[in-house]
Amino acid sequence: MNPTTDPALRSWVAVPADSHFPIQNLPYGVFRRSAGSPPAIGVAIGKQVLDLTLLEQRGLLESRCFATSTLNRFLAAGPAVWSETRARISRLLQTHEPTLRDDDGLRQQALVPQSEVQMLLPVEIGDYTDFYSSRQHATNVGIMLRGPDNALMPNWLHLPVAYHGRASSVVVSGTDVRRPCGQTKADDAPAPMFGPSRSLDFELEMGFFTGPGNRLGESIPIASAPQHIFGMVLVNDWSARDLQKWEYQPLGPFLAKNFTTSISPWIVPLEALEPFRCPGPVQEPAPLPYLRSPGDWGLDIQLEVWLQSAKMDQPQRLCLSNAKHLYWNICQQLAHHAVNGCNLRPGDLLASGTISGPTPDSFGSLLELAWKGTKPIALSSGETRVFLQDGDRLTMTGWCQGQGYRVGFGEVAGTVLPARKDV
Amino acid sequence: MNPTTDPALRSWVAVPADSHFPIQNLPYGVFRRSAGSPPAIGVAIGKQVLDLTLLEQRGLLESRCFATSTLNRFLAAGPAVWSETRARISRLLQTHEPTLRDDDGLRQQALVPQSEVQMLLPVEIGDYTDFYSSRQHATNVGIMLRGPDNALMPNWLHLPVAYHGRASSVVVSGTDVRRPCGQTKADDAPAPMFGPSRSLDFELEMGFFTGPGNRLGESIPIASAPQHIFGMVLVNDWSARDLQKWEYQPLGPFLAKNFTTSISPWIVPLEALEPFRCPGPVQEPAPLPYLRSPGDWGLDIQLEVWLQSAKMDQPQRLCLSNAKHLYWNICQQLAHHAVNGCNLRPGDLLASGTISGPTPDSFGSLLELAWKGTKPIALSSGETRVFLQDGDRLTMTGWCQGQGYRVGFGEVAGTVLPARKDV
Repeated sequence: MNPTTDPALRSWVAVPADSHFPIQNLPYGVFRRSAGSPPAIGVAIGKQVLDLTLLEQRGLLESRCFATSTLNRFLAAGPAVWSETRARISRLLQTHEPTLRDDDGLRQQALVPQSEVQMLLPVEIGDYTDFYSSRQHATNVGIMLRGPDNALMPNWLHLPVAYHGRASSVVVSGTDVRRPCGQTKADDAPAPMFGPSRSLDFELEMGFFTGPGNRLGESIPIASAPQHIFGMVLVNDWSARDLQKWEYQPLGPFLAKNFTTSISPWIVPLEALEPFRCPGPVQEPAPLPYLRSPGDWGLDIQLEVWLQSAKMDQPQRLCLSNAKHLYWNICQQLAHHAVNGCNLRPGDLLASGTISGPTPDSFGSLLELAWKGTKPIALSSGETRVFLQDGDRLTMTGWCQGQGYRVGFGEVAGTVLPARKDV
Repeated sequence: MNPTTDPALRSWVAVPADSHFPIQNLPYGVFRRSAGSPPAIGVAIGKQVLDLTLLEQRGLLESRCFATSTLNRFLAAGPAVWSETRARISRLLQTHEPTLRDDDGLRQQALVPQSEVQMLLPVEIGDYTDFYSSRQHATNVGIMLRGPDNALMPNWLHLPVAYHGRASSVVVSGTDVRRPCGQTKADDAPAPMFGPSRSLDFELEMGFFTGPGNRLGESIPIASAPQHIFGMVLVNDWSARDLQKWEYQPLGPFLAKNFTTSISPWIVPLEALEPFRCPGPVQEPAPLPYLRSPGDWGLDIQLEVWLQSAKMDQPQRLCLSNAKHLYWNICQQLAHHAVNGCNLRPGDLLASGTISGPTPDSFGSLLELAWKGTKPIALSSGETRVFLQDGDRLTMTGWCQGQGYRVGFGEVAGTVLPARKDV
């Protein structure tokens, strides 16, 4: 077992029992202490942020990656630096390690309550790619569009289908989401109309950030894939189903998706997820050799989606899913992406696609949960939902359950704002 | 008439009659004087590059945008700065203006032969979007896939269809193109196979780089679109048709396109293209109001594609097209992209899609020129082509024909390298 994920490890920083951020996690993020402060890099521990930019300045870290406002430099440094840095941070936070614990001045400066900081986008994202890796999701959508007999496209079981998304509109959790306007066309209408989307949806996804990557024209063998995967976040791929339906043929979704994609602020390192690797679904037919994963790369990450309308006092759970349901794993996604020589760079975001489990309460979008509008979801307020309404706050959360601790992702949340009137 | 595009203007720098780079053009690029030199920003004039980074250092330009290695800062500065800077550079180069002409020391330092410099990617591209704006191209592809009766998708005449491409693999002219490997499946094969693409193609396109752009959640009214369009380049959207055919449903092209996209190194400012605006195709049905262009935004740019195989002594022209054939113009593309609140940033690249004219010799891809392999193209070497072979050098060029001068784009060229054997 990697010493940084030992369940017996404890920190001198108080960590509540249900915290997502015990010493076994140590996720990285970028934060501001207050509105005017410069961005700094930190790790979450319990209810605190440990300021790595400061610790590096003071000579407690040798990474030389944290005097900057994004994690890109650290992502580029590669797995040896990631491991060393993580081990060093873990040691500094362990119960019996006095260096930081007993330096009152530095400790008080270096630890900041999470409740006081503003989290920023952790990475300057080069390219954002979105996969379509949940078999249940692809099947559900296929049934709605083409019926149960041809639900999966012929290519689906042979390759991890993906498309390029928009990097500029990836935002950090907490950013409000403006309902998009665009063209829609009812089946029986002679022509399209323009206006606010009436089918705004979420998609429950996870994503990973790439490390060093490959040069253009080279590929990444699947056995090396983990060396290029830094860590993971929760992703909400907001979608306007009515825009999508009208625009997506033949080149795929565009304005239906690129108005906003939200991610959780803390990147959980792949190393922290090691103990939660598990077998993925059986892949039959067997994938082509370049897609054969060495070892198990399913990830047992429990996922939840919660909705709170403007009329509700507290959120209500809509969905309970798990990342282990993904058919195509992160190593397969990465190896596929680069197999044609496409260059991946430090800070690219590769997302999973909607993660739907096998049962109707584990579907990862309203499109599926309310089955194309035919099964409205009852809210505790007496309202119903088939798609999102203005004022709805959508929160996704996820964690790995260890024995007596959780390695969690925090949350990705956003509130739907009404469409602009002046478009 | 804008004084910088006056056909009567002449420069004290020698400009051959057939040059793409008279004083009416002044396209921007990034270059290195030699392998070890730092990147500098320049404009092309005749056979020379004028070093703007140096001129700014010496106080001859007030733009404060050129002490850097990409044009992004200049793109962000917006149309007032673009116009002022262009007017200033134009003046410095005009026949009767002695400032630079008569300063032997500075002039000799500031002008470098194009033949001696290495051109670099001019912009750090944030996001790359590819449209599908040629009606003839969309029709040709539709006929091949679905027959002549349903060639155009129902949405095509209502909106400029587009998808997100890959920014990391956009390269500058002169970069070799590695034949990609990937999955393909013959119609009669039971399963896909893995190997080098056997249907490597080019796509003749043009693209524009964005200026200031919009904030997330806001849009750009079409009347303001020109203020966000800095200038244009030639684009070769290399495509692997066999990979595309197998992978593209339902989310669009991915590995079939993202292995390389080539652009010409000189960005021709929109201001230099003003005299060549012309009516575009009649749009029927009339577009929705947000897509109604004020004024004519067709662009009369002659386009050519040339092929030279390894066995040929000189290139052979494959295609003669024109940008004026595009159904959806650049203002419509930009306004559509932002209408849902998607934020455009300085340095995004928006490409047109393949520009096919009405006649078979004006089709902008081998797929169309050789009509899906049924009409092989005879080369002067005695070879034939239905798709590109290893060693083929593909060159695209384009220019606007003025009275007695050309405003040209130079070229975008690339040679096909064999697939890697170790994938």
